[in-house]
Amino acid sequence: MKKFTKLFMVAASLAALLSCTNTPEAIYLADYLQEGDAERDAMPAIREALKVCRETNASRLVLPGGTIRVRPEKAYEKYQFISNNNESLKRIAFDLEGMDDFTIEGQNTLLLFTGFVSPFSLENCKNIVIQDLSIDFTRTFHSEGIIESVGKAYLDIRFPDEYKCDIINECLYFSDHEGIIYDFSNLLEFDTKKKEPAYLASDYWLSKKTISAERIKDNLIRIKRHDLKGTVGNTMIFGAAARNNPGFFISDCSGATIHNVNLWHCGGMGVIAQRSRNIELKNVEVVPSPDKGRVISITADATHFVNCAGYIRMIDCKFHNQKDDATNIHGLYMAIDEILAPDKVVSKWRNSGQYGVDFLKPGMKVEIVDQKTIVTYCYAVVKDVERLNKITTVVTFAEDLPEGVEKNMVIAADEEYPEVLIKGCHMAGNRARGLLLGSRGKMVIEDNYFHIPGAAILFEGDGNFWFEQAGVRDVVIRNNMFENGNFGYPTWGAACIAVGTRIPDLDKATQCYHRGILIENNTFRVFDPRILNLFSVEDLIFRNNTIEMTDAYPYKGKETEPFVYHHCKNIVIEQ
Amino acid sequence: MKKFTKLFMVAASLAALLSCTNTPEAIYLADYLQEGDAERDAMPAIREALKVCRETNASRLVLPGGTIRVRPEKAYEKYQFISNNNESLKRIAFDLEGMDDFTIEGQNTLLLFTGFVSPFSLENCKNIVIQDLSIDFTRTFHSEGIIESVGKAYLDIRFPDEYKCDIINECLYFSDHEGIIYDFSNLLEFDTKKKEPAYLASDYWLSKKTISAERIKDNLIRIKRHDLKGTVGNTMIFGAAARNNPGFFISDCSGATIHNVNLWHCGGMGVIAQRSRNIELKNVEVVPSPDKGRVISITADATHFVNCAGYIRMIDCKFHNQKDDATNIHGLYMAIDEILAPDKVVSKWRNSGQYGVDFLKPGMKVEIVDQKTIVTYCYAVVKDVERLNKITTVVTFAEDLPEGVEKNMVIAADEEYPEVLIKGCHMAGNRARGLLLGSRGKMVIEDNYFHIPGAAILFEGDGNFWFEQAGVRDVVIRNNMFENGNFGYPTWGAACIAVGTRIPDLDKATQCYHRGILIENNTFRVFDPRILNLFSVEDLIFRNNTIEMTDAYPYKGKETEPFVYHHCKNIVIEQ
Repeated sequence: MKKFTKLFMVAASLAALLSCTNTPEAIYLADYLQEGDAERDAMPAIREALKVCRETNASRLVLPGGTIRVRPEKAYEKYQFISNNNESLKRIAFDLEGMDDFTIEGQNTLLLFTGFVSPFSLENCKNIVIQDLSIDFTRTFHSEGIIESVGKAYLDIRFPDEYKCDIINECLYFSDHEGIIYDFSNLLEFDTKKKEPAYLASDYWLSKKTISAERIKDNLIRIKRHDLKGTVGNTMIFGAAARNNPGFFISDCSGATIHNVNLWHCGGMGVIAQRSRNIELKNVEVVPSPDKGRVISITADATHFVNCAGYIRMIDCKFHNQKDDATNIHGLYMAIDEILAPDKVVSKWRNSGQYGVDFLKPGMKVEIVDQKTIVTYCYAVVKDVERLNKITTVVTFAEDLPEGVEKNMVIAADEEYPEVLIKGCHMAGNRARGLLLGSRGKMVIEDNYFHIPGAAILFEGDGNFWFEQAGVRDVVIRNNMFENGNFGYPTWGAACIAVGTRIPDLDKATQCYHRGILIENNTFRVFDPRILNLFSVEDLIFRNNTIEMTDAYPYKGKETEPFVYHHCKNIVIEQ
Repeated sequence: MKKFTKLFMVAASLAALLSCTNTPEAIYLADYLQEGDAERDAMPAIREALKVCRETNASRLVLPGGTIRVRPEKAYEKYQFISNNNESLKRIAFDLEGMDDFTIEGQNTLLLFTGFVSPFSLENCKNIVIQDLSIDFTRTFHSEGIIESVGKAYLDIRFPDEYKCDIINECLYFSDHEGIIYDFSNLLEFDTKKKEPAYLASDYWLSKKTISAERIKDNLIRIKRHDLKGTVGNTMIFGAAARNNPGFFISDCSGATIHNVNLWHCGGMGVIAQRSRNIELKNVEVVPSPDKGRVISITADATHFVNCAGYIRMIDCKFHNQKDDATNIHGLYMAIDEILAPDKVVSKWRNSGQYGVDFLKPGMKVEIVDQKTIVTYCYAVVKDVERLNKITTVVTFAEDLPEGVEKNMVIAADEEYPEVLIKGCHMAGNRARGLLLGSRGKMVIEDNYFHIPGAAILFEGDGNFWFEQAGVRDVVIRNNMFENGNFGYPTWGAACIAVGTRIPDLDKATQCYHRGILIENNTFRVFDPRILNLFSVEDLIFRNNTIEMTDAYPYKGKETEPFVYHHCKNIVIEQ
């Protein structure tokens, strides 16, 4: 009986589909905004307009220009597993799930959000364009305060009014004027004038309650911990405890274009794409909100691409002052946790940022990698996948795996890798690194400017800590300006261009992990002499680059050699 | 193209369905338990056996007897909105979603869980029987310690080894030996010898961090707060911060029978049913785990029924030492938050324990209630429901609502209410109250024993605080023993049988909220003279009851009148 109902429903949907063949047209959000909505909450209008877009198969939603406020109360809701962000039941403003060939024309509208809302979510979409708009929040997910005095094991910090402070039993709680709590889990000092991480400043990670607080007066708060340091006048950033609300979430999509978008703030990564292909960002500016005096733009990486394919292009973008890297392009490694049969394993996520971001599918070609050497041990084809829960999946392969496959080896997709173009981008003032490059497709990095506190370019990938598949094959880095990088926390980078891969059992690694890197016609204008720090790289050419020394910062490191490489093969440095 | 794929899939399912018409038979879990599974984790066997039960349309799953361990790592996973418990992404051991005519025969198996797992989840099931088993956890979701000394604004508490204590910056964290954290959000003192809440003890609610801690030695911890009191030798219960893992979750089911089950522990309510009909509990014992020396059984109400219909029966059950009421049977009130049109409103949950527990459906008859008087203002029929998210729903009615319907009025179902029988049950030693009665169907409460720290029976319902629909119409309370109740925190009850309803604008209430209560042939053996405390009740008869005074506890209240009632009509007290 149930089955017949389903048949009927399918038929009805088919009929509905056939009736929607009129010429698609534009829907204007303004037509759905009632008096006062833009100033109060445009969410009902957004829902109504998107509903009509779906019903009429419209090709465009046109925003009205000016500023419109968007609040969480009437937003869409969905539990989402978002790679390298936090899983949660989220509120979403523009939920475009399942839409195809659809453009949001911003007409320079400022979407001004309040509270825990994700601006844009694209799941299972095709050919979506989002253009000409700005995104900001009335209150940021992180909190910023100026260091007013520095004592032994304490700092006194003054917070602007927008950061309401409560202290309960020496615990500091931030809220906004509506009472919404904004938890923090880390601190990092920024140079207020230079708008960048303070020279050599390191993160203070707060595991449970490891900082206590006392109100000196009004919003002047004394925070106490034995190792606290800081400089009067600098800005202390209380980093958001979770990455719940990225700016643009793109999952299982083909074709996502973001043009002329200012992303002044969001509570997570700026653009995070997973299992998607053909993504282009052009003139996307991740920068702090103008005229608000903020030091920080968004609370995590500007962009991040996981298990993507087709092309990834970032052209003429600005990635400034975000609380993490400019980009990270990689695949995922899922660990073998148990061998159930010669053709069957239990696989588990070992990095909580990957929970639920399953990529294994029947028919998929995978590599099984010895995590101790990160060398591919064998290839296999997935026959069946049984997801037990967000962490654990039982995988059956088309054939028995060879002898020697064992617990803790890692599985990654070995299918199409994305072609990457990063061109004309300006990156500065953020936490940590610039570009983390991990695609095995062709990658071209050209005409960019880097002023990054860690490595400007990092080749990552490891099977023991972050569980990110990388191992580049064909990278060109040309015509870039690398200016005075590595002024931040030393572990963020051992050189302008460095390798972050970890290989526990190096002696047994029969191959280099990264291969085929050409670095040419770049300018390195640096106070820190370390240009290249390579590890497990084969076939690298460094030629026709200019190195100019500056005294922008005092260099306090011990390494003076510009080119360091070990466990590498066929490295050519021409100077 | 997609549509044709769907059609094909429907046809395939239909074929699969037709092929499963063999005589249903029993599946034995033992056949799926591999060597060592029972001692380590039976979850893979449970999944496999349940899969086979579904595939073969088996009528019974037979457990093996003895003890089997169940862990969360390979458990089912699902985001669940469970009324009066906490919503979350849960791990579930026995997920019976969609199963019909199915019995789990426990054969006296002890299911011994570790960590955050929900034992049983029944959603959209028909005629499920679960019988002859016990449920316990290796480590409880709450924590228990013995008060070893009492000082000014502090208590020194010694915790058994199972409660691992960490103190970080004066914050106390509980964990188990695997490192799993068990958060607490409240404290309540229990009398260790009597195994009941300490005389007149009140909850300490911990909003954010309002208690600090210091380790005296090993697991002897000093907790500090200005108002802390206690008695040496008593047990302090650190109540679980969330109700994530109820014992039995029953949602949208018809026919759920739980027989001969010991529920020694779980992390939430024991049995929580919503939008379901025909539920029977017989010989269900919610009691502390034997031989473990625990004072507390489960962490919240023993049972709870929300928007149910058909029958609810609890026969020969024991509800002992749970951290909240023995039962609460009620409907839900959803508040009108905005009037969009004469036939259209925005409705919102105002009690976070009700988020996502939507009951409004097209075609449903509802009452719209003036929350100031809790009198029904009008009736209406739901035409359409658009769920915006877990808190907010847009409701369209079949006809325009009458003049005067306004913001803050509340909407509840006005359809079939459950018939309730609570018979032969033994209730003692728990926190708060006994039975919270709020069905408008016939309710019979007979042959029970009550030794409850608050009211043994409470008529609840209100449209401003808990938003629970009650308003009884036909209740018989007979042949019960009420023994020395109201020894706990005074707000838990103003008499043995009391009314907890709140009516802000009492003068305008044109009707009593509760009607038709017969109390006869009961024995009240009490140290506290307060037998009845009524409010907004009409047509109550109290006859042929025996009242015996005791000196079990010193009575410290001011009220000496056994029968107090105001704003009532037609109350007959025969002594």
